Amino acid sequence: MTSDRLIEITNPDDPRIAEFRDIRERDLTGRENRFIAEGTVVLRLLAEAHAAGGEFIAEKVLLLQNRVAGLADIIAGLPPEVPVHVATSEVLDGIVGFHLHRGVLALGRRKTESELSAFLDRLPQQALVLVGCGISNHDNMGSMFRNAAVFGADAVLLDESCCDPLYRKALRVSVGSVLTMPYCRQSSDVHLLAALADRGFAIWSLSPRGEADIRDVPPSDRMALVVGTEGDGLPQNILSAFGSVRIPQAPGLDSLNVATASGIALFEMASRIKRI
Amino acid sequence: MTSDRLIEITNPDDPRIAEFRDIRERDLTGRENRFIAEGTVVLRLLAEAHAAGGEFIAEKVLLLQNRVAGLADIIAGLPPEVPVHVATSEVLDGIVGFHLHRGVLALGRRKTESELSAFLDRLPQQALVLVGCGISNHDNMGSMFRNAAVFGADAVLLDESCCDPLYRKALRVSVGSVLTMPYCRQSSDVHLLAALADRGFAIWSLSPRGEADIRDVPPSDRMALVVGTEGDGLPQNILSAFGSVRIPQAPGLDSLNVATASGIALFEMASRIKRI
Repeated sequence: MTSDRLIEITNPDDPRIAEFRDIRERDLTGRENRFIAEGTVVLRLLAEAHAAGGEFIAEKVLLLQNRVAGLADIIAGLPPEVPVHVATSEVLDGIVGFHLHRGVLALGRRKTESELSAFLDRLPQQALVLVGCGISNHDNMGSMFRNAAVFGADAVLLDESCCDPLYRKALRVSVGSVLTMPYCRQSSDVHLLAALADRGFAIWSLSPRGEADIRDVPPSDRMALVVGTEGDGLPQNILSAFGSVRIPQAPGLDSLNVATASGIALFEMASRIKRI
Repeated sequence: MTSDRLIEITNPDDPRIAEFRDIRERDLTGRENRFIAEGTVVLRLLAEAHAAGGEFIAEKVLLLQNRVAGLADIIAGLPPEVPVHVATSEVLDGIVGFHLHRGVLALGRRKTESELSAFLDRLPQQALVLVGCGISNHDNMGSMFRNAAVFGADAVLLDESCCDPLYRKALRVSVGSVLTMPYCRQSSDVHLLAALADRGFAIWSLSPRGEADIRDVPPSDRMALVVGTEGDGLPQNILSAFGSVRIPQAPGLDSLNVATASGIALFEMASRIKRI
């Protein structure tokens, strides 16, 4: 039964749940690859990833007492060595530092990331990948993973200047797809793109000043869509070294948000290669 | 000269800038149609709207001292009756309640909104409009306006259950396009769509369960794309009363964020009617 394994927490300072303390003000990411998962959907994906023996491990869970019944199937799917803590609303607020309406938290850990070459060598012969360079906004990072998942991309590749997609907010915005979409965050932008080009990828850098219209991009077996930060966008050396594409827009004003732009471009590319 | 009109504020409690106090914790919207504009881009659009005699008025401006030189052209474009206040970083933080890196704030006001029928009657014969039903997230609202502007839509229509697009964060995320894109927020979802149908609009409600593929939507002179909240999405009575469309996606998992989905669907529709 679920109730047998529940560990009741009555003191916000209990050391067994120390990792959840004040999570709004800090982020665990970077500390031995640990991260905080929030909400039912993300917890379910983490539990599934753990059970499948993949690269993510659920280390502990912390639930609001009244959420337990609705999560019985997820809890049952967690191996017995994963402790499941429960707390009342008052205690949970005291731990977390703000009123967490979802009442569902887990501490996860990512095993060591593959080395870039090995990761790229495992990509299928027909592949669509999303590449992020200098993406520092957690919302944009999360949305990019969500879009990659929705349009059936095979992987997300990030240069080392990107933020960690396991940041609490990025993971939440991704609706957990950071846990299901293979990804790698290593090396410089230029090195990453050269490594893809070496492996036969057609590289399409997205920019409002891109040469090709995204609607005219020819399909190919291996396609990489590259997006950069808002504001500066991709550096000129990248835009001129590889193919560049633009999303056509009405004259004047402003360009699209990078998350939306990645969604539109992936939609077009996935259409072109019949993934959707 | 710019410096002649600057009003120095040295006390955070100065009543002349009371509207800017603690803006993070509250929102002016709803109070006599006033709103807070943040950042250079939004201030510029507000100043232009004011100068053009449109529906938005700049009531007062509050700037970080060291931002003044870079904003001289915007300040010069503001009519002399608009007071421009300046403050040091310490005083500004004391007023606003958090460290505001942009250092550019304005208080704006929207004149009374047109009545819905009059608003719709002014739309051009060839028209593309974005309709939001029950959009309560400020980020999504802002992104929808931004997407509508980028793809040349003629208007945004919101049912009365939507949040106000002049909320500080929605306005900021829209990159000011709430001030340039004609919009109306009135009446119920069903009434709004019926009023559009009466005026010859082909109505396409976006849903993961939509009947038509967005790539197959036939072009028409007047097209309305309708999006609903995440989670519940559009109510079934709307989906069955009008045409519904889906953005195809890889099997399983989750659907797109409503902001990204609106961007993709507007991109497709704008392509179809040769707006982009």
